[in-house]
Amino acid sequence: MDVRAAVAIAAGKPLEITTVQLEGPRAGEVLVEIKATGICHTDWFTLSGADPEGLFPAILGHEGAGVVVEVGAGVTSLKPGDHVIPLYTPECRECPSCLSRKTNLCTKIRGTQGQGLMPDGTSRFSIEGKKLHHYMGTSTFANYTVLPEIALAKIREDAPFEKVCYIGCGVTTGVGAVINTAKVEPGSTAIVFGLGGIGLNVIQGLRLVGADMIIGVDINNDKKAWGERFGMTHFVNPTEVGDDLVPYLVNMTKRGADQIGGADYTFDCTGNTKVMRQALESCHRGWGESVVIGVAGAGQEIATRPFQLVTGRVWKGSAFGGARGRTDVPKIVDWYMDGKIEIDPMITHVMPLEDINHGFELMHHGESVRGVVVF
Amino acid sequence: MDVRAAVAIAAGKPLEITTVQLEGPRAGEVLVEIKATGICHTDWFTLSGADPEGLFPAILGHEGAGVVVEVGAGVTSLKPGDHVIPLYTPECRECPSCLSRKTNLCTKIRGTQGQGLMPDGTSRFSIEGKKLHHYMGTSTFANYTVLPEIALAKIREDAPFEKVCYIGCGVTTGVGAVINTAKVEPGSTAIVFGLGGIGLNVIQGLRLVGADMIIGVDINNDKKAWGERFGMTHFVNPTEVGDDLVPYLVNMTKRGADQIGGADYTFDCTGNTKVMRQALESCHRGWGESVVIGVAGAGQEIATRPFQLVTGRVWKGSAFGGARGRTDVPKIVDWYMDGKIEIDPMITHVMPLEDINHGFELMHHGESVRGVVVF
Repeated sequence: MDVRAAVAIAAGKPLEITTVQLEGPRAGEVLVEIKATGICHTDWFTLSGADPEGLFPAILGHEGAGVVVEVGAGVTSLKPGDHVIPLYTPECRECPSCLSRKTNLCTKIRGTQGQGLMPDGTSRFSIEGKKLHHYMGTSTFANYTVLPEIALAKIREDAPFEKVCYIGCGVTTGVGAVINTAKVEPGSTAIVFGLGGIGLNVIQGLRLVGADMIIGVDINNDKKAWGERFGMTHFVNPTEVGDDLVPYLVNMTKRGADQIGGADYTFDCTGNTKVMRQALESCHRGWGESVVIGVAGAGQEIATRPFQLVTGRVWKGSAFGGARGRTDVPKIVDWYMDGKIEIDPMITHVMPLEDINHGFELMHHGESVRGVVVF
Repeated sequence: MDVRAAVAIAAGKPLEITTVQLEGPRAGEVLVEIKATGICHTDWFTLSGADPEGLFPAILGHEGAGVVVEVGAGVTSLKPGDHVIPLYTPECRECPSCLSRKTNLCTKIRGTQGQGLMPDGTSRFSIEGKKLHHYMGTSTFANYTVLPEIALAKIREDAPFEKVCYIGCGVTTGVGAVINTAKVEPGSTAIVFGLGGIGLNVIQGLRLVGADMIIGVDINNDKKAWGERFGMTHFVNPTEVGDDLVPYLVNMTKRGADQIGGADYTFDCTGNTKVMRQALESCHRGWGESVVIGVAGAGQEIATRPFQLVTGRVWKGSAFGGARGRTDVPKIVDWYMDGKIEIDPMITHVMPLEDINHGFELMHHGESVRGVVVF
């Protein structure tokens, strides 16, 4: 069938809005009509050519929401008409990772997904007979796409597509890092580095679980109001406190009979490896945990003195907020519908597919928190 | 009173065996007759001058066992005749760290301990009227010493001093890192880097909790028999597998339907920051945890790509095996007496105080696993 798509022809070039051909779903696959899709930094990272594993030409997009149109042979958990969110981290519930109870990083289709292909090793997308790559197993920059059954979370039908598509990546990544990865307790002291689309969701995750002190750190003072909007209690601009950001934050968080400072939990949402180190070293001696969420540039490394770890700090990371997509994403949709988390104020720009390149520019220049394409 | 002690006069000089003066216990303090004390790398680290926080002159030693002789005012949990193990990590049970349930790093007397002083800011040791520093709050290289009540674990009276003194540091550090810090589950796959006195105790900790695959890594092939003696199932000499130690270990630990390799838990017992990185990167994607136990040289740093953390590996550290001294040390003494862990084969050399400098040389040249001084 013919579908409308934004095609990434080559690294560094704008997306091309055009008609491409999509094959129907094969065994274990599902055809989904995409109703809305967010524009995320990760799409831009790949489009820019900075991602060493980027493949072209491809249909990008990984933050969508839509409706099931048709299911392939053997698909049992979904039927036409079901509302769904595509999952770039699938949940097969039978690989060693899914069965480990320790990680959300399902390995069932990892190999083919990384090659821009469906699990059978082929692509469903083509243009004038020439193969197009899938992207992150989702390819939501098209009004129809085909996904594996295990890469779709079924959600309630009263949830608005142009809002809950954001749960397909940003919301879950931020809120999930707090709940699943760090497992933050009520009353905790936390620091969030970088108040973009992920950082704001970390902040509202911290508010959700009852953190006491929620410090936001960003070099842009405009982010202060944004952070406060979602529960931030204190704001720090590192350019205004000099080079000594870590002692400043440790001092700010001194508490208890021994007046030792440092956060119970810190989150890096910048992708900057120097900030990642600051995030670790701003943790409380004995138990502070730092979670890396941001994606660093190729080849960059984090470093610290091992003394930081031996005296009780823990360094970990989070991908897709540690969430198991089919199990956890429908719950997060419920939390949004119940008002426990907010999404609407973060969707700062809504546009048709034709304006998607402009949407990338808004994001790149920090003018949008989240831009969403509606089909 | 006059006591016999090995005095660290200055950095880089041999200990001087001589008579020093010891004041009796003040409020909250306890006079202990030391019956045996282990010789540990940490004592040597300080004596060598490599420890930037080392103070001289001082009475070193932190791995002892003895008998309570006299208690100061207000001491309620100990009485003369009690058998005890000194604790360089005290357990006050009332500071924020003790009450956090998250760390063993009691902060009650941290400041004065680091200054080589008793909690009231003075020293009990002197020589010819000149003050001597305490060391790690314990100073067990003397046949009598004074400690705070919170820095003494009461143990059973049938436990042999010259064996259980090792629980005051090495045994608890290794076994505790497995049990308290990593919380290793039965059936786990683990890698231990460095098979010295700590590494062997990590290995027997892994055996105790029912790990399946226990891989020991050491550049000295003589360590193979030692590791196997305590439960090691596989031995790897990095100098025999070339530069690619991490892929070698990952390949060795491939298992499960997806044949992804990497250990569930790894432990660095070397203090070498390059090995610490290898230990992290030998962990299984999704859930592998690496515990730094070894102490690195001043100013050295660990590094890795943040991708290692984002894909689910965790980097942490352990001090005194995460053990709460007064609560956990008596249990480990019981485990030894019940035959659940072994100590006797590790005590390779027993000597009088006069031979303590020779004991340091044996350790330094790798000839002893543990040398113990008996008074």
